[in-house]
Amino acid sequence: MQQSKLFTKTKKETPSDEVSKNAEFLIRGGFIYKEMAGVYSYLPLGLRVIKKIENIIREEMDAIGGQEMKTSILQNKEVWEKTNRWDDKEVDIWFKTKLKNDTEIGLSWSNEENFTSILKQYVNSYKDLPIYAYDFKDIMRNEVRSKSGIMRGREFYWKALYSFSKDEKEHNDFYEKMKITYSNIFKKVGIGHLTYLTFASGGAFSKYSHEFQTITSAGEDTIYVSEDNAIAINKEVFEDEVIASLGLEKNKLVEHRGIEVGNIFTLGTNKAESLDLYYTDDKGNKVPAFIGSYGIGLGRLMGTVVEVLSDDKGMIWPETIAPFKIHLLSLGEGEAVLLEAKNVYEKLLASDVEVLIDDRSGISAGEKFADSDLLGIPYRAVVSERSIKENGIELKKRTEEKGKIVSLSELLNLFTSKI
Amino acid sequence: MQQSKLFTKTKKETPSDEVSKNAEFLIRGGFIYKEMAGVYSYLPLGLRVIKKIENIIREEMDAIGGQEMKTSILQNKEVWEKTNRWDDKEVDIWFKTKLKNDTEIGLSWSNEENFTSILKQYVNSYKDLPIYAYDFKDIMRNEVRSKSGIMRGREFYWKALYSFSKDEKEHNDFYEKMKITYSNIFKKVGIGHLTYLTFASGGAFSKYSHEFQTITSAGEDTIYVSEDNAIAINKEVFEDEVIASLGLEKNKLVEHRGIEVGNIFTLGTNKAESLDLYYTDDKGNKVPAFIGSYGIGLGRLMGTVVEVLSDDKGMIWPETIAPFKIHLLSLGEGEAVLLEAKNVYEKLLASDVEVLIDDRSGISAGEKFADSDLLGIPYRAVVSERSIKENGIELKKRTEEKGKIVSLSELLNLFTSKI
Repeated sequence: MQQSKLFTKTKKETPSDEVSKNAEFLIRGGFIYKEMAGVYSYLPLGLRVIKKIENIIREEMDAIGGQEMKTSILQNKEVWEKTNRWDDKEVDIWFKTKLKNDTEIGLSWSNEENFTSILKQYVNSYKDLPIYAYDFKDIMRNEVRSKSGIMRGREFYWKALYSFSKDEKEHNDFYEKMKITYSNIFKKVGIGHLTYLTFASGGAFSKYSHEFQTITSAGEDTIYVSEDNAIAINKEVFEDEVIASLGLEKNKLVEHRGIEVGNIFTLGTNKAESLDLYYTDDKGNKVPAFIGSYGIGLGRLMGTVVEVLSDDKGMIWPETIAPFKIHLLSLGEGEAVLLEAKNVYEKLLASDVEVLIDDRSGISAGEKFADSDLLGIPYRAVVSERSIKENGIELKKRTEEKGKIVSLSELLNLFTSKI
Repeated sequence: MQQSKLFTKTKKETPSDEVSKNAEFLIRGGFIYKEMAGVYSYLPLGLRVIKKIENIIREEMDAIGGQEMKTSILQNKEVWEKTNRWDDKEVDIWFKTKLKNDTEIGLSWSNEENFTSILKQYVNSYKDLPIYAYDFKDIMRNEVRSKSGIMRGREFYWKALYSFSKDEKEHNDFYEKMKITYSNIFKKVGIGHLTYLTFASGGAFSKYSHEFQTITSAGEDTIYVSEDNAIAINKEVFEDEVIASLGLEKNKLVEHRGIEVGNIFTLGTNKAESLDLYYTDDKGNKVPAFIGSYGIGLGRLMGTVVEVLSDDKGMIWPETIAPFKIHLLSLGEGEAVLLEAKNVYEKLLASDVEVLIDDRSGISAGEKFADSDLLGIPYRAVVSERSIKENGIELKKRTEEKGKIVSLSELLNLFTSKI
């Protein structure tokens, strides 16, 4: 894509109402737009990141047997009354509105009731289970405060998968698989080395739930990390008994701030009982399905990557989720430079390499370098009079201080062999 | 995909509360689920269709210079007050809700205000225009009645593009291009032969707006079609003067029911003036941007395809948007059949052909045929004792009465050469 045609522009100033680093860089880079506190729109560069995260998650969900759907945002009061989660006294983050005939409806803040109602009509026999269903969806939560940029939104884009198993054993097998799937996802988006499977408080059916916590000073949680075996304990269950039951030693655990980038939770049979999702087992008994839930917020994940991988000049995107692979800068207005930059751009495009060319005229080299650092595309390739004199293109990683001259054919080889 | 693992099942009965053909077939086929009147969730088969429609539209929007973003559903009252479209007396389809501090917010029912506010911060000079920005989004409209299945929803998934041009001339050039783009889209999704560019009432800046109307008895509009030059006039502007100005003869126009599957509209400069989207032209004057809007409802498009292309046995999907290309039926429980069906399935998968295999056991051939007709996948391939005896697979189109035996290599050739 040509940067001269991209409708967003970088900003030098940090918006005065933003206190989080993720919002600062994402707004300055033109990745997101703040509609109101906790509500952001994704601009073209930001949407490219979100789509890549979405595709990584979708691939993993499909690989584990997930079936994707797209459930509605508007929610039926009657369904949520059955699980006692309609009343604002029970759930205090509802956004509610009304149909013309005064019927109250709600905006989706979670998906269990939705999914269970949909599946109910298709489940009769034990042969119909297990079912793993998921969707990507805009979720609305009426949070009192929202100051963490895209890390805690009133409106946010998430993936939720629910597992409907025949019994606890079948559930546990899938739950263990999902732990691995989630680890894969966080590795793929580039924060695996900072993300820990974390024991948190459970519910009626399980002693613990499991969070995936990424270490960052911007985190809202306190966790105690055991580096030896790459797990952590959330402060909420950080007790001697718990530490011992996990075979850990208290003095080896290190306190960190963490942000919950995903969670997996054993819900058990309550929801199935309330919403009448029973099946007939092989002995003819009516049995409620055993449910688990598995969530990831995509905006939060994107925000977390910015928090943990940026430097003081700007963002640093991992190649897997970067909006483009290469940022090609055309420096100077000489005809030789313009022609060569265009040539390199077209050769990269023809090789299916995702490239953003900074072809803006009247912008100094210094400004182009600063913008490139802010946008954080993994590789920077510079065409200038100097690079032409040296018969090549100056290539450097966003994380490197100095670049080196490579020939066009070397550049193309490097990036086509990476695909 | 294996049908035995698909969590949806077909239904024989039509839901008693649905009067439209699209909802009947889509619900019976397991493509959609009704949450409440006018609010549907898309189940795996339905979502596959929606995603294909989305990709066709995205490709066309990108080709015409569109830049995709993802705007928020929650809307800021202050922005809409500036264009005098917040008050329920002005716009009577708002869904509204409140933050904890009692601030009123709205749910997106259209996107002009949103887009204009976002772009405002990036537009200063004439060099920054034109901009073509679009998004796919769940839109909420508080309709009094909603009985047309997915053709008129209270919640629906749409694509909206807005063009921000320097002046009316630049706008008109783009507007004409978009007419062709829209025609391409309707051709690609398989309803081009029934869809007419239709003159409808305009606004302050243009005599007409343009709708794309597809002829169907399920339509909500009355249109007058000129077959000779493939255009139509909406009843709302069907007057002698209009007919004459378009060079048409009244007695050659044929009355039809139509459904509006898309519209393109010249908005002019009003919104830019209200929301302060001015730029400095090459003479130093402050000028408001000239705006156009271009919408398509994806669910409505899907519903329209069902209305116009189905028969009494079920749906008939065009290949471009079908959930799968081939429905492979495994008939009978003999080992030879099961092995051969599995073999054909795996060969098709290995060739990247989208195939749904009906591998359900204990289901009669008659039921499998009926389900296949209902689901409407373009090609049906049958493996049975008879087909094995004839050394092949019985292949037929959904629209054909009789199939013919083809060898596995012929089948693979046929579908791999189609990609």
